[in-house]
Amino acid sequence: MTSRTLDERTGTHIFLKCENFQRSGAFKARGAFNAVLQLPEAEATRGVAAHSSGNHGGALALVARECGIPCYVVMPAGAPRAKVDAVRGYGGHVIECAPTMDAREAKLAEVLAETGAHEVHPYDDPRVIAGAGTAAAELLDEHPDIQLVIAPVSGGGLLSGTAIASHGINPGCRIWGAEPTGADDAYRSLERKELEPRTEGSTVADGLVATLSARTFAILSEHVEGIVRVEDAEILDAMRLLFERCKLVVEPSGAAALAGVFAFPEVLPERVGVILSGGNLDFGTYDEFAKASTSDDDDD
Amino acid sequence: MTSRTLDERTGTHIFLKCENFQRSGAFKARGAFNAVLQLPEAEATRGVAAHSSGNHGGALALVARECGIPCYVVMPAGAPRAKVDAVRGYGGHVIECAPTMDAREAKLAEVLAETGAHEVHPYDDPRVIAGAGTAAAELLDEHPDIQLVIAPVSGGGLLSGTAIASHGINPGCRIWGAEPTGADDAYRSLERKELEPRTEGSTVADGLVATLSARTFAILSEHVEGIVRVEDAEILDAMRLLFERCKLVVEPSGAAALAGVFAFPEVLPERVGVILSGGNLDFGTYDEFAKASTSDDDDD
Repeated sequence: MTSRTLDERTGTHIFLKCENFQRSGAFKARGAFNAVLQLPEAEATRGVAAHSSGNHGGALALVARECGIPCYVVMPAGAPRAKVDAVRGYGGHVIECAPTMDAREAKLAEVLAETGAHEVHPYDDPRVIAGAGTAAAELLDEHPDIQLVIAPVSGGGLLSGTAIASHGINPGCRIWGAEPTGADDAYRSLERKELEPRTEGSTVADGLVATLSARTFAILSEHVEGIVRVEDAEILDAMRLLFERCKLVVEPSGAAALAGVFAFPEVLPERVGVILSGGNLDFGTYDEFAKASTSDDDDD
Repeated sequence: MTSRTLDERTGTHIFLKCENFQRSGAFKARGAFNAVLQLPEAEATRGVAAHSSGNHGGALALVARECGIPCYVVMPAGAPRAKVDAVRGYGGHVIECAPTMDAREAKLAEVLAETGAHEVHPYDDPRVIAGAGTAAAELLDEHPDIQLVIAPVSGGGLLSGTAIASHGINPGCRIWGAEPTGADDAYRSLERKELEPRTEGSTVADGLVATLSARTFAILSEHVEGIVRVEDAEILDAMRLLFERCKLVVEPSGAAALAGVFAFPEVLPERVGVILSGGNLDFGTYDEFAKASTSDDDDD
């Protein structure tokens, strides 16, 4: 999608890849489909499993339903209602755990041992990365003259797939990530050229708190020019603009790349692709975000 | 746009015509463009004017800006901020008046006398009706096998244009209107076969409170099979479903036609076109609607 408002505000041409319209409401369906459809039947019948704070779980449950196999999703307490409901709505089994990465991994190990299910990692998996890259591949197939693509970065699966697919089509295309300042391990890792752990911090973008793996770090180091860090207020302003002017429901994580365009540290090229990664958000949740949105600029 | 969720819920194929993505955020730009572009230049230079609670004013201001002529919009006190801002954002002059139809008409008469501007009525104008009909024309051009089209009805301009355009393409296409129970003058007028005035009542759909004119009543009497009345709660539930599952920002008036599909009094045919008339809504306004949305059905 394109928008006169976005083009006027940035002085460039913005091409939005609307993964909020993707099945399951986020790009995650791409990787989940690609991983599950490659499983040998004997393995697939025991089902698939993952831990997920949200969109990956819903996507995996959707794919499992389509394939007629069971799906187990370990979800931390406090995960957004819409995301928990999505897993259940697709017939997936939700197993709740404490909201720490250790607890998620321990619980998932239990589930895998009990069920014999196949783990589909949300990002540290070449099949998932390749699937995620098809969003950028579609965007560049349609608009091969795009000069810069920005995608949000969390564990790095989407950005890795975006980079590989984009460079496969156009090696000269510039690739940037957008990351919340409150969860900026990818920014620090690429700056220091070694994998940095996550530090304390929080962000409104609940989908962007994972950390890079060795695999995604290596891919990003090779392909990505830079990471632009965005404050929560900038993410919410981008979300508000997409809502009010583009009529698109995009979750905070999904709006991060557009916030990255607005905060871009260099001169933007003429044609910029932006991956709006997802739109799964409770109807009532908008209010708290609206109140937190600090902008009172009526001209945007 | 199409949606598996909507198809599953209705047992039919739903084709959404997304006028929330239209320029100015609503179908109104179609009629305003068609009217203004037909004005002789000498008349156009004096500008255009209208009274409007919202979307027509914004659309007219947009068209006037594109044509380089002035635009005057009389708006009742209490009109949604997003709609007032839209008029001003397009460079239109907003003249506030008391929130009654008499006050709107009196103030507009003053403005016309002072400025010599040309009035573009929001619906009682053949140019505006023809323009509005292009939404349905596009929908049926793309999907000529649609058997039923539902559009919201307020003053009847959109529904008149929808009916004429649809029947021009497919005389067998069934045409229905959707109208809030709290502003059901079109329903009563078609039932009694004479133009009925508006009675006391209110609705969350601020864009659907106008009354039919003799012109639109005559067109609807000839072309429209029926009007389905929808409660505010049904409108808000449809809006919520469009938000959470289709990721579309649609204002209450815009969601009325989908609410009409859910409340349709007969068996739905296999392919149904639905005009989502607009999406202009404040970011923060969703909260009150979310709280008013009575549905706690998580399966939709």
